[in-house]
Amino acid sequence: MAFDPALFQENERLDPTAKRVLLADVGPLDCEAGGHLPSVVVAYETWGELNADRSNAVVICHALSGDSHAIGWWDRMVGPGKAFDTERYFVIGTNALGGCQGTTGPASPHPDGTPWRTRFPIVTVGDMVEVQYRLLDHLGIEQALCVAGGSMGGMQALEWTLRRPGRVRKAFITASARAHNAMQIGFNEAARQAVMRDPKWAEGLYAEGEGPDQGLAVARIVGHLSYLSEAAFDQKFGRRLQDKDGFDFRLGVEFQVESYLSYQGDKFTRRFDANSLLYLTRAIDYYERTSLVGSESEYLFTSFTSDWIYPPHQSEELHQMALAAGRPSAWHNIALPMGHDAFLLDGVHQGDLVRAFLER
Amino acid sequence: MAFDPALFQENERLDPTAKRVLLADVGPLDCEAGGHLPSVVVAYETWGELNADRSNAVVICHALSGDSHAIGWWDRMVGPGKAFDTERYFVIGTNALGGCQGTTGPASPHPDGTPWRTRFPIVTVGDMVEVQYRLLDHLGIEQALCVAGGSMGGMQALEWTLRRPGRVRKAFITASARAHNAMQIGFNEAARQAVMRDPKWAEGLYAEGEGPDQGLAVARIVGHLSYLSEAAFDQKFGRRLQDKDGFDFRLGVEFQVESYLSYQGDKFTRRFDANSLLYLTRAIDYYERTSLVGSESEYLFTSFTSDWIYPPHQSEELHQMALAAGRPSAWHNIALPMGHDAFLLDGVHQGDLVRAFLER
Repeated sequence: MAFDPALFQENERLDPTAKRVLLADVGPLDCEAGGHLPSVVVAYETWGELNADRSNAVVICHALSGDSHAIGWWDRMVGPGKAFDTERYFVIGTNALGGCQGTTGPASPHPDGTPWRTRFPIVTVGDMVEVQYRLLDHLGIEQALCVAGGSMGGMQALEWTLRRPGRVRKAFITASARAHNAMQIGFNEAARQAVMRDPKWAEGLYAEGEGPDQGLAVARIVGHLSYLSEAAFDQKFGRRLQDKDGFDFRLGVEFQVESYLSYQGDKFTRRFDANSLLYLTRAIDYYERTSLVGSESEYLFTSFTSDWIYPPHQSEELHQMALAAGRPSAWHNIALPMGHDAFLLDGVHQGDLVRAFLER
Repeated sequence: MAFDPALFQENERLDPTAKRVLLADVGPLDCEAGGHLPSVVVAYETWGELNADRSNAVVICHALSGDSHAIGWWDRMVGPGKAFDTERYFVIGTNALGGCQGTTGPASPHPDGTPWRTRFPIVTVGDMVEVQYRLLDHLGIEQALCVAGGSMGGMQALEWTLRRPGRVRKAFITASARAHNAMQIGFNEAARQAVMRDPKWAEGLYAEGEGPDQGLAVARIVGHLSYLSEAAFDQKFGRRLQDKDGFDFRLGVEFQVESYLSYQGDKFTRRFDANSLLYLTRAIDYYERTSLVGSESEYLFTSFTSDWIYPPHQSEELHQMALAAGRPSAWHNIALPMGHDAFLLDGVHQGDLVRAFLER
């Protein structure tokens, strides 16, 4: 599918936030961990117009469960008049390699016509970024103005600045880390175990529509626990009951927070592939950078005081690594109570910082 | 089974820390939530000697996964020469109602001879305490010197001072709360969902040896995540690999922390009943006290700076409630890095505080 700017502009006029996913074939990939993919397709969306000298591209990398639709999941940051202003910048959202929203992943067809499932090779954050570089080749963009992402997306953004220095001028990295600590690996492992201990996982070789939905729902519930803070849980739910005034005294749902978590768990199974969860969490658990030497980019890091799963000191550490590598860098620790989710919800503080960062 | 002090003393001489569980039949119980148990048996152990005026009894209440063997799971606090000095005090450990280590619970026989399973009535922290009061009746002890516990055990200790004021002089409550907040309920719900979404749970009516072991293991993994702190995880595991020097690049275990969590999960299934986990977590999620008015006890509260699942402000709140009720109270927030597990691991700081508290 060739890139057709005219088609985009017409679509965008009709509904600037509708999902219009395109696919780019970026060829075969030798994976960093040794595997080989004979063909990789990248799902992506773009908003805004590429300027004449092709210098206004912004690449948005999603977190674990995201997709190419950055104007949706990061609507506080991406859109007309937002920090990543689609009236000024050519904003590109891509689905990560190993994911399940259009880009090649374990649910994609193997050359034999059936899904890859767990025959899919282990992929790394580096592989995800390699595929994104190739997408920019495909779009004819030599250097992006900025790459941005939070959490897993922040690791991709970091890697963008290191793997092919010069390919991006600026990186905005929020609520992320140079490497997962043991607790972050532990939460990911709980999610993986929830999937892999579901008998329907079947070593990952489940048939379409017969996957480990129950295990995947539990995995999502565990994830959600880590995305909020104590204060956010209190504010959202407290000890409020679910549609009643008194306890039913039963094992089933009593509190709103229970209903919310189960609902989120079930909803997730309708849009996400269980094996993708395994491959993506593995990729970010493997990821580790000990130095930013060699980077040619400028950095902006943000973290949130209430984020206990990607604690602020991990962003401070990245900032110190950038300074140690002689790169311009800033780090802002934003006092907001929403926990890790704050990186998705805050368009105000991050927005102002990113606006200034892009204009500098 | 009658209580025979002579037998205890002889056993204790042989091995002071061996498990010697006795059972006391404490009769039928009308449960607070409306159910009825035609017969309740309490599993308990004791260490030390009851003095002549029966004034040196200390009741130890366990947390979610504990049992009557307090000299084992709380060995930093209970034993000869420890804060709960078995050479000075008559220390009583009991298994909680609804548990699975000897006291009547969902795995115990229903009057029809098969296990109760989910026909077991919903029990509350108040019911657990009622059963413990009856055990003390059985032992001929009118007033305990002290009741002590952490986490779920702390809720029982708190309830001891309110349900029948005067039945206990002092309460030592560590790493606990007057009620669970939404995040604590959320973590419990994740554990419950892991069990209940395992097809082998079968509405709780599984046959012996055919229970939801995989779901129960995941539930335990989720629990473990909440018991440690980021610092404790870092110190115990960091990013160390499991028995190798480099990654295998696979979905299975790579890091030590993964191996540890899965091992803990599997180990738990060999000693714990899945339905007990559901009933006990439900009981503590229901629990809520808004005032200590009516209590006749003196309180000592401790919390730990790194405990994020039972955060220190919850213990401070209990202390303020005790003061507001006109009761003598102290609260110490202990700076240790081990997270919630610190209440089990700290015999030094808690030990000194408890020693002085008991002697006062």
